[in-house]
Amino acid sequence: MQRSDYLSLFEAGKARFVESWKEYVRIPSISSDPAYAPDCQRGAEWMRAYLERMGLKAQVFPSSGQPLVFAERAGDATLPTLLFYGHYDVQPADPLAEWTNPPFEPEVRDGRLYGRGALDNKGQTMAFLAGLETVLQAGTFSAPLKVIIEGEEESGSSGLFDSLQTEEWRKRLRADVLLVDDSEAYAPGIPAITMGLRGIIHLSVKLFGANFDLHSGLHGGIAPNPAMALARLLATIHNPDGSIAVKGFCDTITPLDEETRRLLRSAPFDQEKYEADFGIKALGGERGFTPEERLAFRPTIEVNGIHSGHGGPGQKTIIPAKAEAKITSRIVAGQDPVRSLALIEEHLRAHAPEGLRLVIDEKGGVHRALAVNPHSGLLKRAARVLEAAYQHKPVYLWCPGSIPIVVSLVEALGAEPLLVGFGLPEDRMHAPDESFSLVQFRDGFLYACLMLEELSLCKA
Amino acid sequence: MQRSDYLSLFEAGKARFVESWKEYVRIPSISSDPAYAPDCQRGAEWMRAYLERMGLKAQVFPSSGQPLVFAERAGDATLPTLLFYGHYDVQPADPLAEWTNPPFEPEVRDGRLYGRGALDNKGQTMAFLAGLETVLQAGTFSAPLKVIIEGEEESGSSGLFDSLQTEEWRKRLRADVLLVDDSEAYAPGIPAITMGLRGIIHLSVKLFGANFDLHSGLHGGIAPNPAMALARLLATIHNPDGSIAVKGFCDTITPLDEETRRLLRSAPFDQEKYEADFGIKALGGERGFTPEERLAFRPTIEVNGIHSGHGGPGQKTIIPAKAEAKITSRIVAGQDPVRSLALIEEHLRAHAPEGLRLVIDEKGGVHRALAVNPHSGLLKRAARVLEAAYQHKPVYLWCPGSIPIVVSLVEALGAEPLLVGFGLPEDRMHAPDESFSLVQFRDGFLYACLMLEELSLCKA
Repeated sequence: MQRSDYLSLFEAGKARFVESWKEYVRIPSISSDPAYAPDCQRGAEWMRAYLERMGLKAQVFPSSGQPLVFAERAGDATLPTLLFYGHYDVQPADPLAEWTNPPFEPEVRDGRLYGRGALDNKGQTMAFLAGLETVLQAGTFSAPLKVIIEGEEESGSSGLFDSLQTEEWRKRLRADVLLVDDSEAYAPGIPAITMGLRGIIHLSVKLFGANFDLHSGLHGGIAPNPAMALARLLATIHNPDGSIAVKGFCDTITPLDEETRRLLRSAPFDQEKYEADFGIKALGGERGFTPEERLAFRPTIEVNGIHSGHGGPGQKTIIPAKAEAKITSRIVAGQDPVRSLALIEEHLRAHAPEGLRLVIDEKGGVHRALAVNPHSGLLKRAARVLEAAYQHKPVYLWCPGSIPIVVSLVEALGAEPLLVGFGLPEDRMHAPDESFSLVQFRDGFLYACLMLEELSLCKA
Repeated sequence: MQRSDYLSLFEAGKARFVESWKEYVRIPSISSDPAYAPDCQRGAEWMRAYLERMGLKAQVFPSSGQPLVFAERAGDATLPTLLFYGHYDVQPADPLAEWTNPPFEPEVRDGRLYGRGALDNKGQTMAFLAGLETVLQAGTFSAPLKVIIEGEEESGSSGLFDSLQTEEWRKRLRADVLLVDDSEAYAPGIPAITMGLRGIIHLSVKLFGANFDLHSGLHGGIAPNPAMALARLLATIHNPDGSIAVKGFCDTITPLDEETRRLLRSAPFDQEKYEADFGIKALGGERGFTPEERLAFRPTIEVNGIHSGHGGPGQKTIIPAKAEAKITSRIVAGQDPVRSLALIEEHLRAHAPEGLRLVIDEKGGVHRALAVNPHSGLLKRAARVLEAAYQHKPVYLWCPGSIPIVVSLVEALGAEPLLVGFGLPEDRMHAPDESFSLVQFRDGFLYACLMLEELSLCKA
């Protein structure tokens, strides 16, 4: 079917689609706060029922965390099996006073639905599922389909992570294509395909000195200072040119190929806008790489926080007893997260100051980067579909952030990922007055219809 | 008179001395808390009356801060005029639960008086004044004498500092010898003369980045990180050998003479004891100097605190919007505090990172070091007196800390300082269960008697 056919079906179903979307948003399924556990359960049950009404076989499974919703539908076994991933949980809604309507009493104003989760991920999920319902009713979709809607994306995905450790769940979720609808478009009217995600690892570095804060006069000149020593230790992590000085850290990074460079040019970094938006010059990272390259294809080691000694108003003449820094590193294609963490730790131990006790802990994350194959047929088909839906060629985005569960799904299932989303910066994701416009909802619907139909045509 | 004569007089007056000391300690003259301002006033009035009963002409003067007690007594004009300095204010008493007796209900147990201020500085002051009263009654003291007891030593001495700016006060306090009784002995039975104090300057260094904390994934590689940049900036302050890298900072330091080196050997630094007491290796400061030299004759630049970004449990993936470090520097003889502060600021500005805003503020302190002349006749007389009092030669201590008001008195009045005190580490100065033993009180009394008599003998 054509874009215009699906558009007519959208107009016909719109009131019903929006009603369901609002129902879903009304459930305060905040996963990070145990007080909302019953609402998470309710969110899962609501989604199960919704998927069932659509004709899928749907179940709610308990997990080590919030329940998981799984649904499936058999299809033409010669076609690739699709797995759609989404999450029913949402961010906390505070500060409540900054919302125009209460966050869990969704309201349409000026063509936008406002509410917590209106975009992330309830809006995007409901747009996709409205498309799925439409192609199912129109008979234009025939591939085998699975749906996994988890309930802890906003708080670490531990239930799904743990489930993926079991053969049972890996078998249950087995698929050829992983469809994720949790990212952003490039701009209103300009679609985007997310080509990569950086991986992440984190750790904490602590230096301990005396048993208590020492008088900086009486001990200054004999007691090593953990705050100063930590500053010196952190200063060894980068070279003067901004590159990472950790030995071996960058050795295995996958080099950029020509196709990647070509796709990278589709979304040039706007330095002026960046500096105006954030009030900071884009001078971070390594010399010798463009901002686009630094964001997508170069790793980082960032201090997220450093704390030691006195911090209030006025002076306190002490040599602090300890100092601590929190560190996260973003890694890129070709870097093994476990090895990367070990190399950082090795570096810190090799440069540790004399006379102080070094403790490296809170080690974790260890999630690999995601790299979509720029030569993939799936990618080319998605690009054609997006151009048909939007009547504008997509741009290719590399997300410098990390979505560890997506990477784990890809790794555990061996599926090829396709990350297409319709969010925009003005949607205020995670903030008060989160919203998703009906136009974006329709964009997501159109993409789902055309892509699901496309994936029913042939295997390649 | 002989030591033994004064000892007999001490025994005779002891009950009365201790009663007055307890009366004085009962006044909760905490200068840092405005709620205790009436008690500070009461402390000043009590001291005035006490000095008056002793035969001095005593007055309470208002100041920009707490009131000042000034007293004087004419004497033989051919003798040097003495100024005794002390303070009637005390540290706050919290945590109250850790006191055995309530801090302002002094109690003698096992030969010690317990209470806030029992040592610092009420005990030391009362021991000296008991001696003064004794020599006055015995007729063994004849020099012109002034007494200044301030009420803000524990909270910045601003009233006395401001008063010293006026010609009136400089004239009022004019003296040849400044007697300060606010320091420590070397050990039980071993007296000490404090030969120097380091000066102090302080400042705060702030680096500002974006308008708010940035996502460390989305901005990592383009946004400069204030926490990392501050670490790198602080790391430039010292050379790898621990010496200060600030240009010109150490150029004017007074070199050590032989007599100073000789006196320095009287109190060797006990590395083993230090490491056991504080749980830290004495590895700080500059290579190539002994611990004694590093503490007394080398300047320091210490970070007293550094704070930026996330500090609680767990991870927060941000690039902090700002980072701040508090710095104090201890300076030594030959270093001008204003110039030293300017050089540190210049260094920080010269090494400031690109793309972040550097703010240097909370600049202050700017107090010169105090250096007692090791060849002075006064010093030799004090040494003889202490040996007579204790029947043990004194050791010579350089206090690596700072007592800015003492330095200012010396500078403003042109007086020669003599710092002798009787505190010991076990007295728990500033802590709960502060105390001062009757033996130490007697040591202070004996020193006062013998030194005041000595200073009545001749000018040199």
